Amino acid sequence: LEERFSKMLESHVTELKEQLLYMASIVERMIGESIDSLVERDEAMARRVIDEEEPKVNDLEIKIDEMCINFLALYQPEASDLRMITMVMRINNDLERLGDHAVNIAERAISLMTKPPVKPLIDIPVMAKKSVDMVRDSLNSFTKADPELAADVRSRDDEVDDLKDQITRDLVAYIKSDPSTVERALELILIARHLERIADLATNIAEDVIFMVKGESVKHLW
Amino acid sequence: LEERFSKMLESHVTELKEQLLYMASIVERMIGESIDSLVERDEAMARRVIDEEEPKVNDLEIKIDEMCINFLALYQPEASDLRMITMVMRINNDLERLGDHAVNIAERAISLMTKPPVKPLIDIPVMAKKSVDMVRDSLNSFTKADPELAADVRSRDDEVDDLKDQITRDLVAYIKSDPSTVERALELILIARHLERIADLATNIAEDVIFMVKGESVKHLW
Repeated sequence: LEERFSKMLESHVTELKEQLLYMASIVERMIGESIDSLVERDEAMARRVIDEEEPKVNDLEIKIDEMCINFLALYQPEASDLRMITMVMRINNDLERLGDHAVNIAERAISLMTKPPVKPLIDIPVMAKKSVDMVRDSLNSFTKADPELAADVRSRDDEVDDLKDQITRDLVAYIKSDPSTVERALELILIARHLERIADLATNIAEDVIFMVKGESVKHLW
Repeated sequence: LEERFSKMLESHVTELKEQLLYMASIVERMIGESIDSLVERDEAMARRVIDEEEPKVNDLEIKIDEMCINFLALYQPEASDLRMITMVMRINNDLERLGDHAVNIAERAISLMTKPPVKPLIDIPVMAKKSVDMVRDSLNSFTKADPELAADVRSRDDEVDDLKDQITRDLVAYIKSDPSTVERALELILIARHLERIADLATNIAEDVIFMVKGESVKHLW
């Protein structure tokens, strides 16, 4: 009986992790597509992020939360399983927020499509790539319980911050030289901030992984 | 024995709620002070938010999370207690994020203090007041398990959004008429966005309360 119980628990943990990774894969795609829709001025792609993918992520958040609560009620897990489930709940919440940022970017992309471009978009896609890689690696560090990879994710947050500062400075210069660009430049500044927040959330996840594996909070030490 | 156990559980729940409310009171004060420091150009006040209050909030977040995990391990609660504890963990996380927004506002306030004002600050304090009231009422709706108050908080989110849009439009007009104001105006636009995010987080908490009380998610229905 003990053995069957432990096998059931194991299979539920696996199912939870699979659902979380499925949700993460949608969120990663949403971020990538929101930026692609901006660069390629592809309204259909932006609408897909907003109308098709975001509702899926919202449903998954509720589903995974319910699965976690049911898991806690059913197995009343101790120590490491308990910590793992509370981390799944936190990551679940972070993934939903990541999806929100992608939707915000897609909305700004749509608003920018009807207007002439302020400047060629090179640095924003670079920043987006770094941010999405951080999200992917933070999830990988979770499934592999790999604190080194998590620490690596954390160390990349500064690069993204620097890119955001540089992008903002460039756009402020555009506004100064041609104030008629202010609305469009502001949209791009805000998109860079969404990407910064995306990297922050990946960093949150990485810090949670370090906490889960090492049992100590590194969140507020640096 | 059963009775002693249930009394212990009750007293731990009370302690958890008290800690959460204590954390919320610091966060509310931080938001208020960050805006006051902006309006009154009071650097000492801004520094207090960043250097004294933020570390307290970070410590409390870790402490409350540990208390919740210990609670789950010790009591292995079912149904309503379980849902309540998972809500405490979510609200705890939201409060920490609220503190981060206050710190961001305080940092921008410090940067603006050394420069001439762009315009008299009237609408931002109004927006801040509405946002802080939403935070306070969302916490009250939690401690009173009051879904009507929670619904009321949610209904006020649109007002804050409208204020943010109006503030942004005004500042964009300032930039157009005098492009030398762009850096300062941008700081104010970003402060308005932090206030909008503060109202969003209060709305999150209110939606969690409705979920906790009614057992159904309203998060993605509107």
